[in-house]
Amino acid sequence: MAIATPRPIQFHNKPIAMAHGAGGEATRQLVEGLFLPAFANSLLDSLADAATLLPPPGRLAITTDSFVVHPLRFPGGSIGELAVNGTVNDLAVSGATPLALTTAFILEAGTPSEILRAEVCAMAAAARRVGVPIASGDTKVVEHGRADGMYIVTTGLGVVDARANLSVARVEAGDCILLSGPIGNHGMAIMLARAELDIEADIRSDTRPLVELTLALVTRLGDSLKWMRDATRGGVATVLNELARDADLLVMIEEEAVPVDDAVRGACELLGLDPLQVANEGQFVAVVAADMVDAALAALRAVPGGERACLLGEVSRGAHSRVAARAAYGGMRVVDMLIGDPLPRIC
Amino acid sequence: MAIATPRPIQFHNKPIAMAHGAGGEATRQLVEGLFLPAFANSLLDSLADAATLLPPPGRLAITTDSFVVHPLRFPGGSIGELAVNGTVNDLAVSGATPLALTTAFILEAGTPSEILRAEVCAMAAAARRVGVPIASGDTKVVEHGRADGMYIVTTGLGVVDARANLSVARVEAGDCILLSGPIGNHGMAIMLARAELDIEADIRSDTRPLVELTLALVTRLGDSLKWMRDATRGGVATVLNELARDADLLVMIEEEAVPVDDAVRGACELLGLDPLQVANEGQFVAVVAADMVDAALAALRAVPGGERACLLGEVSRGAHSRVAARAAYGGMRVVDMLIGDPLPRIC
Repeated sequence: MAIATPRPIQFHNKPIAMAHGAGGEATRQLVEGLFLPAFANSLLDSLADAATLLPPPGRLAITTDSFVVHPLRFPGGSIGELAVNGTVNDLAVSGATPLALTTAFILEAGTPSEILRAEVCAMAAAARRVGVPIASGDTKVVEHGRADGMYIVTTGLGVVDARANLSVARVEAGDCILLSGPIGNHGMAIMLARAELDIEADIRSDTRPLVELTLALVTRLGDSLKWMRDATRGGVATVLNELARDADLLVMIEEEAVPVDDAVRGACELLGLDPLQVANEGQFVAVVAADMVDAALAALRAVPGGERACLLGEVSRGAHSRVAARAAYGGMRVVDMLIGDPLPRIC
Repeated sequence: MAIATPRPIQFHNKPIAMAHGAGGEATRQLVEGLFLPAFANSLLDSLADAATLLPPPGRLAITTDSFVVHPLRFPGGSIGELAVNGTVNDLAVSGATPLALTTAFILEAGTPSEILRAEVCAMAAAARRVGVPIASGDTKVVEHGRADGMYIVTTGLGVVDARANLSVARVEAGDCILLSGPIGNHGMAIMLARAELDIEADIRSDTRPLVELTLALVTRLGDSLKWMRDATRGGVATVLNELARDADLLVMIEEEAVPVDDAVRGACELLGLDPLQVANEGQFVAVVAADMVDAALAALRAVPGGERACLLGEVSRGAHSRVAARAAYGGMRVVDMLIGDPLPRIC
């Protein structure tokens, strides 16, 4: 990998000013004083208009995500860490390994440099964890009151594993639905961090890269892995509804099987929220051939952070394009896609 | 190319609401009603977390640019057109042909849907002109007062032409500096569009894709083309200073050779601005071996829009890392990089 040791940062004690986005001398100071030393990689160091790289053979995956989370920092993570993990995870659930990221900052004038520095360092650490270089970037500054501290947009380029054959068209009745771990932690952590609620609970965002988990499934299952999606905005409920609609099949899950931490469940009950509709930043749903469920769960559970992977339900005929949850006592409910936005700017 | 005919847009009469960025039903309506029909290409239609494509052989170029221009529409262009051309041009001056773009919208709640629709259509038209699909995207919505209508971030993936061998390390004393055409139009168009100035002039942004022009140079010159950069924020002066600094040589230009339209020159004189420091969105600087200047100019001038390409000056030893302009009467002045930000949010 093209990532080097971070170098000393030389960008201190100055609030962000409009000139930092003007492309002239102040932009140069920001780029050379902060971005280059923190991100430290040979692709970025060239400072050309575009980074160039020779990709390994195979299909490429490309994806973009914007991050406007409020507040910028919250228990378990921050916007910079999200901005790397979120984009890396869109590559991961596409069966791809990240090759390079690019980043665009839209900064609000007056933002203290310490706040920007903290997020740049969080991005650098998250990228380093995955071994992916931040290869190119751009910075714009808008007037005070025209943003909210900062917005970050990251794009990820990856190479699709040759063993992956993912398509919703391959999903068929009888396939099983797996979930990587407990849900609702990110959304609930953000909600509590906003301090508008009178709930005290130790809930931390689950933001993390999913590459090792998805790669474990691709490696172990090959063709028997049919579909993956990370359950971010809109939660697992929205992902399952997309699956049901796009496959035109019934998605049936067991309510009891859904892993939810006690603190999250308690907060959801107080607020009248369905954990299935609460956002995650470190969980994904996978559809696998039924005869490979045990192998898939074993592969996931062997990866640190995958211990609580579980069988969530199955895909079947009847009531096409719907998602239903079966309760332990035998009742059944329809699980809807998220409607409206109960918690804006969650990522 | 994977671009199809645009389909009817089904997204009308609704101002942008927070729910359009929530990833649920309202996001789906926005994506399926507006983005998919306008951008109409098979990569985007899959609606997967990442678009996948099999690239042609060769080095890849990747670049990201954010666009926060104010106002959103101005004589000669708009933010949507800029967002495509700007990123395409960063690929072009890297010697690359665009393969795919991705886009991220950060929308301000309350923005009329007509305004978004106009920019999406402007992006689609600009992408179609270059023949590049908008392959993947993301939308976030922030509260009214937390953006300014919309910000757009585009990332471009391209394949570097095998004949291109561009590096500032290859620039040497004696090389010649070419400019693609008249400068200052974009910056001055934005300045006048803000209506804070009492100047009336028919000045239009020069936003356009540069791919045909750069490809003409790559094709004709091969190895004799050494370096290219588009002169956007900070203008030609900033690009020349970057060249002088990175090559550690003296950049000497002829003041008389700089092509500036009369209206732009007049407005610059009134405002006390140096046209060399005013932004462009459709011009680039190239460094070529001295013996290929005539061939290079002929190649540029043969492309529609390249008729006013000119020899701007040369690279030489002495006064390393400086840019100097020689006046017709023999005087000389130092051309500085843009300092500060005389015109924020120009792109």
